[in-house]
Amino acid sequence: MSVENKRKIIIDCDPGHDDAIAILLAAGNPNIDLVAITTVAGNAELDKTTLNALKVCEIAGIRNVPVAQGAGQPLVRKRETAADIHGDSGMDGPVLPQPALSPVPDHAVDLIIRKLLESDGDITLVPVGPLTNIAMAMRREPAILPKIQEIVLMGGGSFGNWTPAAEFNIFVDAEAAKVVFESGVPITMMGLDVTHQALATPEVSGRIADIDNPVAGFVSELLIFFRKTYQDVFGFEDPPVHDVCSVAYCIDPSIFQCRKLHVDVETKGEFTYGMTVVDMLGVTGKEPNVNVALGLDHAKFWDLLCEALQNYAHLASKA
Amino acid sequence: MSVENKRKIIIDCDPGHDDAIAILLAAGNPNIDLVAITTVAGNAELDKTTLNALKVCEIAGIRNVPVAQGAGQPLVRKRETAADIHGDSGMDGPVLPQPALSPVPDHAVDLIIRKLLESDGDITLVPVGPLTNIAMAMRREPAILPKIQEIVLMGGGSFGNWTPAAEFNIFVDAEAAKVVFESGVPITMMGLDVTHQALATPEVSGRIADIDNPVAGFVSELLIFFRKTYQDVFGFEDPPVHDVCSVAYCIDPSIFQCRKLHVDVETKGEFTYGMTVVDMLGVTGKEPNVNVALGLDHAKFWDLLCEALQNYAHLASKA
Amino acid sequence: MSVENKRKIIIDCDPGHDDAIAILLAAGNPNIDLVAITTVAGNAELDKTTLNALKVCEIAGIRNVPVAQGAGQPLVRKRETAADIHGDSGMDGPVLPQPALSPVPDHAVDLIIRKLLESDGDITLVPVGPLTNIAMAMRREPAILPKIQEIVLMGGGSFGNWTPAAEFNIFVDAEAAKVVFESGVPITMMGLDVTHQALATPEVSGRIADIDNPVAGFVSELLIFFRKTYQDVFGFEDPPVHDVCSVAYCIDPSIFQCRKLHVDVETKGEFTYGMTVVDMLGVTGKEPNVNVALGLDHAKFWDLLCEALQNYAHLASKA
Amino acid sequence: MSVENKRKIIIDCDPGHDDAIAILLAAGNPNIDLVAITTVAGNAELDKTTLNALKVCEIAGIRNVPVAQGAGQPLVRKRETAADIHGDSGMDGPVLPQPALSPVPDHAVDLIIRKLLESDGDITLVPVGPLTNIAMAMRREPAILPKIQEIVLMGGGSFGNWTPAAEFNIFVDAEAAKVVFESGVPITMMGLDVTHQALATPEVSGRIADIDNPVAGFVSELLIFFRKTYQDVFGFEDPPVHDVCSVAYCIDPSIFQCRKLHVDVETKGEFTYGMTVVDMLGVTGKEPNVNVALGLDHAKFWDLLCEALQNYAHLASKA
Repeated sequence: MSVENKRKIIIDCDPGHDDAIAILLAAGNPNIDLVAITTVAGNAELDKTTLNALKVCEIAGIRNVPVAQGAGQPLVRKRETAADIHGDSGMDGPVLPQPALSPVPDHAVDLIIRKLLESDGDITLVPVGPLTNIAMAMRREPAILPKIQEIVLMGGGSFGNWTPAAEFNIFVDAEAAKVVFESGVPITMMGLDVTHQALATPEVSGRIADIDNPVAGFVSELLIFFRKTYQDVFGFEDPPVHDVCSVAYCIDPSIFQCRKLHVDVETKGEFTYGMTVVDMLGVTGKEPNVNVALGLDHAKFWDLLCEALQNYAHLASKA
Repeated sequence: MSVENKRKIIIDCDPGHDDAIAILLAAGNPNIDLVAITTVAGNAELDKTTLNALKVCEIAGIRNVPVAQGAGQPLVRKRETAADIHGDSGMDGPVLPQPALSPVPDHAVDLIIRKLLESDGDITLVPVGPLTNIAMAMRREPAILPKIQEIVLMGGGSFGNWTPAAEFNIFVDAEAAKVVFESGVPITMMGLDVTHQALATPEVSGRIADIDNPVAGFVSELLIFFRKTYQDVFGFEDPPVHDVCSVAYCIDPSIFQCRKLHVDVETKGEFTYGMTVVDMLGVTGKEPNVNVALGLDHAKFWDLLCEALQNYAHLASKA
Repeated sequence: MSVENKRKIIIDCDPGHDDAIAILLAAGNPNIDLVAITTVAGNAELDKTTLNALKVCEIAGIRNVPVAQGAGQPLVRKRETAADIHGDSGMDGPVLPQPALSPVPDHAVDLIIRKLLESDGDITLVPVGPLTNIAMAMRREPAILPKIQEIVLMGGGSFGNWTPAAEFNIFVDAEAAKVVFESGVPITMMGLDVTHQALATPEVSGRIADIDNPVAGFVSELLIFFRKTYQDVFGFEDPPVHDVCSVAYCIDPSIFQCRKLHVDVETKGEFTYGMTVVDMLGVTGKEPNVNVALGLDHAKFWDLLCEALQNYAHLASKA
Repeated sequence: MSVENKRKIIIDCDPGHDDAIAILLAAGNPNIDLVAITTVAGNAELDKTTLNALKVCEIAGIRNVPVAQGAGQPLVRKRETAADIHGDSGMDGPVLPQPALSPVPDHAVDLIIRKLLESDGDITLVPVGPLTNIAMAMRREPAILPKIQEIVLMGGGSFGNWTPAAEFNIFVDAEAAKVVFESGVPITMMGLDVTHQALATPEVSGRIADIDNPVAGFVSELLIFFRKTYQDVFGFEDPPVHDVCSVAYCIDPSIFQCRKLHVDVETKGEFTYGMTVVDMLGVTGKEPNVNVALGLDHAKFWDLLCEALQNYAHLASKA
């Protein structure tokens, strides 16, 4: 496929185990043109998520994609991280060397704005962490709004994981999420409804373990750690690789079952701060503003990832 | 079964199609001792829900159960009714004569308090409308709290029907719900998770239509109207008979799958007022305070109702 | 003056130093017909405020006024008391014997409802504690609404004392306050704007100390304690006798400067729960619903109280 | 006075009548080094406030101060303007020619960040509109926080003007205000408590009218329009020149009486959104975070402005 036909995406992330795998899927799939990687505080503090993004690029031989550091704290509220889930480094488990790569000097918000303004309106934003950078870019330069082809975000859902009502990414910066959801830009939401179906079963983990290259080996180690924390904290049998869903959707939307629904972001509630209030039954009478993913084809989803990981075969074998 | 072994319940209701069927199940089942029926504004205004309760008693030959009228508006907020669902009368569909019965002079709150204080702690409250009367009774006479055996309420759930986040009964008076949920009394919650499984399928409706007595005929007519509104308003194929679940649980808890979970009631949210925030994953670290029904045995549930309706055979046939 | 021309009032209170003085003003003034005293939890727990009310009646020879105990906790939220201000007993300072009097068996809410329904619409409610009893009465029996001549309450203001935004009485039960302020009944609000002008200066305290009867002696002791806590907690030079303002207004409204303004009660805010939001500049465009007292004639106010205290001369001298 | 001893300020504004006068005071006073003027949506939309800022510079001969356009809408919520007060143009009244000046290409947020990072920590921010630009700069580049000498903002107060509880600037973007008030940077707040004392009385207006230069003439016309709207909308006898207070404080803090107090910004309330909750009595126990201006020396204040206006004598006379 020629570059012209590839789908251009910017991944805005806070690696994060599943963030890392999402980057690897994007870089390993021939139909994706990874325009930039931007980082945000979320699963861990900003310096850690940026370092993790660079480490992922290093191990995967991603050399020509700019990595730009973004917001270290939410738009309005104080920072909250998820050390219970991702460990102290934000990507505990695999031991990786310090990367030789460094971030570009631009702030993530400026890079996002510049890439969008220079584009033909063909860039999709793929935020898989808190939406701080995206909201800041929208407020800093409203001219980007018509330039965004689509936002395929990981976050929210009709139930929560960080609180009973709120998913982590939205909870961390619900004000930013409110800005994004009310922006009028086309949004596809990969929320917990679907990402809790994207489970790395033992069968899937076995397939990945059998792929003989260092990137697949790295993913295997990520899944071993992630499996353990999801069992300990949430009692899940298998860990869900949330962020991977957003990239997978960009590659092949037919993997997912979606419905166009109205979604509001709660920022006032006592017990519901950060909830994405999804109007499943259409009782609000409000126009749908989000394409909500509710189901996925498990086999096609994991095939996509395994194929991408096999594409790192040119890198030195892990042996 | 002797009276001593029957389960004593007070139904606090706002008939309402499913409220009516819940009363009929209680009065028709030999294991229930229906101590009182109290009314509250909800599906319709108070005078209508009281009238409807009396009509139900009249058609079912319920003569010795006191019917007491209660609160005409919520504890704090302004009244909201559900004419879209239950029609203008609150129980549209069947045409019933004016009842000869009248309510007792006591206010529902006073009757509930008196019955509880006089009891041996063996009365279960079965609120299937907004929780205004129950909260008022708790605040008016805290001495009733240890006297309540259990509250088996219809309301709430992990999703909403009146708003995307809130079920109607809780939404109408979330402050009252907050009082009840924080009271420390044992609560079993029949929320939408389970009541949306209590569907009057065509097969079920057919069985009821085949029962040859006026009470069953009345239920058939209720279901015809209720089926239509649930199709028109919510796009449901079959109507859920929410309130019946609470009475069914009192008769045979084994019909239901339940989990002990922590539930908070949201009263501050912009989009989530009246939500019962159910901690499904145990992420709050708070002690479970509610026995939440999540599943039911469809066959056993409807068998229970059909048996109760057959017990009205002594009443004149509808022919 | 004949009884017919006296202003009939029910004092609903949580004594409380200034509550006690308010009762003494009412009972000592010839133009007031004190129909009942009802109690509520507030400055202290309910059993203490009831006991204190009885003690005040005992020392003042108030024999024919029913004292009825009311709500022990707020309508919706958890209880908060004000031990910092009123001491552990709720009326620390004077040492009084156990009273021989006891409360009537009726609940305060029932007594208020009965007195109002039996009246010709000529009873003024004078709530000087949290508004729980009044709100409960309104919801329990809406028929009382047109029977209430006026509500002259102590509470609220355009600034706070318990929090920066909220006055204690409203903060303790803002949901009850919301019910009362939205009831449509004529309300005169004695808020902090005016009550902070009702200061027991040394000159005033001296005048009271010079009145030679046990009731005046009791008031002197109350003021000594109250002076100290207002100096320690709030840095006030002289203590404000908040609740006395409401009774004084019932006797002689001309003592007060008032404006008809719109007032909303905040129940959702993070920092403003329990605030009475007074539309001083008329920017909301909403109809005035409250007669807000903003100023008083200091000399006339204290003359009124001193005269009332002198009317207890028939009781045995304190010597 | 040498440049080295002048106080360096950046005025962030939304002209606005009083904003215009604030700029003129800063540019006309010899002790102020006006580093930049940045604009924000507020009293009018962004393009209008920017145009008005340029017009003010043009008429006052301000040539070497960069004017940078900033945020066109609040950080999170939707825009609200104040056409009732400032007219459709945002600065109705005087008729001014289109300015020859244009804004610098930088965004206000970038200019603020750059000026601060390049500084020796000796720049004071003087925001006299909504705090959107300041909050965005703080979140975009946290390294500026220790570089800000002080923020002397116009906004808030212990009462409101746009709603009963909230002053316009804070109400328009309370989330931005929350960011700024919680930033830890030294803040002096010129709220309504003090700005409602900065009244342009007829005597003052007369003095300004007597100053014979076009800038003073322009100010006279502004005051004529502003007087009328304050009379019509708020019933004020004389108009308050809010924003001028912030610049006056930078020149001579001794004009103002201030207290160090704790201030929270309410973002959740139903009736209190945008309120600055000022802990006047110290009841929260929280550390003071704001220097709150509560009084001013009226004579000194207006002398300062008149002197500044006289310094425009070199410009062609209005005749």
